[in-house]
Amino acid sequence: MNLPRSGAIDCDIHPALPGPAALLPYLEEYWRDTLNMIMKGLGRFEMNSYPVNAPLTARPDWRIKNAVAGTSLELMREHALDHFGLRYAICNCLNASMAVFNPDLGAALCRAINDWLAKEWLDKEPRLRASIVISLTDPEAAAEEIERRAMDKRFVQVLVLVMGEMPLGRRPYWPIYRAAERHKLPIGVHAGSMFRHPQTQSGYLSYLAEDYVTQAQAFATQTVSFVAEGVFAKFPELRVVLLESGVSWLPGLMWRVSKDWRGVRTEVPWIKKIPAEIIRDHFRLSIQPLDVPPGDDVARLIDHIGSDEILLFATDYPHWQFDGDDVLPPGLPATMLDKILVDNPLAVYPRLKETLQ
Amino acid sequence: MNLPRSGAIDCDIHPALPGPAALLPYLEEYWRDTLNMIMKGLGRFEMNSYPVNAPLTARPDWRIKNAVAGTSLELMREHALDHFGLRYAICNCLNASMAVFNPDLGAALCRAINDWLAKEWLDKEPRLRASIVISLTDPEAAAEEIERRAMDKRFVQVLVLVMGEMPLGRRPYWPIYRAAERHKLPIGVHAGSMFRHPQTQSGYLSYLAEDYVTQAQAFATQTVSFVAEGVFAKFPELRVVLLESGVSWLPGLMWRVSKDWRGVRTEVPWIKKIPAEIIRDHFRLSIQPLDVPPGDDVARLIDHIGSDEILLFATDYPHWQFDGDDVLPPGLPATMLDKILVDNPLAVYPRLKETLQ
Repeated sequence: MNLPRSGAIDCDIHPALPGPAALLPYLEEYWRDTLNMIMKGLGRFEMNSYPVNAPLTARPDWRIKNAVAGTSLELMREHALDHFGLRYAICNCLNASMAVFNPDLGAALCRAINDWLAKEWLDKEPRLRASIVISLTDPEAAAEEIERRAMDKRFVQVLVLVMGEMPLGRRPYWPIYRAAERHKLPIGVHAGSMFRHPQTQSGYLSYLAEDYVTQAQAFATQTVSFVAEGVFAKFPELRVVLLESGVSWLPGLMWRVSKDWRGVRTEVPWIKKIPAEIIRDHFRLSIQPLDVPPGDDVARLIDHIGSDEILLFATDYPHWQFDGDDVLPPGLPATMLDKILVDNPLAVYPRLKETLQ
Repeated sequence: MNLPRSGAIDCDIHPALPGPAALLPYLEEYWRDTLNMIMKGLGRFEMNSYPVNAPLTARPDWRIKNAVAGTSLELMREHALDHFGLRYAICNCLNASMAVFNPDLGAALCRAINDWLAKEWLDKEPRLRASIVISLTDPEAAAEEIERRAMDKRFVQVLVLVMGEMPLGRRPYWPIYRAAERHKLPIGVHAGSMFRHPQTQSGYLSYLAEDYVTQAQAFATQTVSFVAEGVFAKFPELRVVLLESGVSWLPGLMWRVSKDWRGVRTEVPWIKKIPAEIIRDHFRLSIQPLDVPPGDDVARLIDHIGSDEILLFATDYPHWQFDGDDVLPPGLPATMLDKILVDNPLAVYPRLKETLQ
């Protein structure tokens, strides 16, 4: 374990739903009946595009025999919270409710997931915080869920997937951003897909080796979409946290969008400063995975980004992104570690800071 | 000319924009500058997927030398209003403003088109009515345009294209339907594409022979989407007019959706009667093109649909769908002609009926 200190804030930890049946107590009767019917044809509530036993899914010693990794709070304490000496960890519960096509079922399942998170995780472990899981399929319903949930300060973020139906900056999603900004909730954009489109502009891919890499292109697309569509002109206090995005695509993108924008800026008059600056002001990125070879390149990458406030510590537990027990990617400048581990997370999650214990 | 009477109401007539420059006087300065810039790279404001000189585009004697067919009110009077003895004709101005990606530009161009229609067509010819052109790209902006335009009773419908970004029943479009229902404006769904997706579930087609046929599948998809998503449960007074849809796909679809629905109706509890009945209550179809061989088959088709209130007369001027001058598809039962030519249009367009002169 290579963490230099205890008390880090883990911005991306994954409690897992043991299966859809766990949501039954949290659903109204109609949706309970619906889910019971669906479950007959559905084993888990799984939406990975890669095999469940791929190494990425869980570190071997974090797997649970006959159960899904991440389903045990006790093991999460042992493996992550205690082991890494974490002060807080933000639960991002990825599951198929975010990708359901039926808009009312999707909204009902997301409400149930959030109730389940509050009762089964947050109530039992004071070091945990969580993201509000929403379905983008019905933006008005998503905004209502944010409003409903915002009273509970342990929810510190809104969670969406990086590959959805439309670019995230698009107007139909603005009711979500209006609600999120009002309640100081950043939008957490996590790797993963709603499977509405192929992963690439040229269709579907053949290999996992391509598939996971492509997440980075999707994050790049969404970063530009938020900026170009004027989301931050309309919602100047809104922040976006890119989770499991990788980082090394960012400097090139910042240069490219800042260059191209100059020639066409009359088209997007709400962009009143260089897009790279807007990105630096509004975006944060978790450092699992850190897609840079160890050594000087890491410091140079951060130098290219031009800010020491952008990176956020994350374990990605129980997913497995690092060698052995080295949860902190090697090569990060020692002078920045306190920022990455504590200060930057507190700055981007104002609701977490408010409830510091 | 085979119309049995004068005083018919033409539900689909197409005044054409001579070119984007015609909109300049109707745009605010910023959008005027934008359009001037765009026009440098853009000849017409054209969005057909077929060649502009294909026979479908205009009857040979309805073409205008060195100009686009449909651009002259004088010729529209001579060729259509006077020639067919029409009492009213509803202008559906199809043009690229409906497919523009930039949401603010799309909204500005649609406002300009509607102003242009009012001034250049409706003010000059009392027999004309028009559909409100909107851009689906920003549904809230589209609803605002409907609200703004609704004061002018000569606008009797809202116009959208059959192939868009999402199925038309989807929730993000409901602000449009809320505004349309409030002002007794049917939604006119016209053949054509915003070119957001391939025309088929298997990608792009190779030939015009396939391309135009595929419009019928798109109309079938949208008909089911409106019903399944519960649009008419939420907006019970809303009507949908399918324009240039063809008709012969409808009975098979009504049977199929009514059969399949029985097995899964718990999923869509807002469908409280047989989908075929909902379709009969809420949908109307224009009769150009009528894709039935002449003879008994036409009467049998109408019998299959189970209603004599569904079909609406249209010339589709200056597009060319019929043989010679036979604007009325042969084979329609004589007893139904008054309904198709007059009564059905008046029933589905309450704003037209209110302003009868």
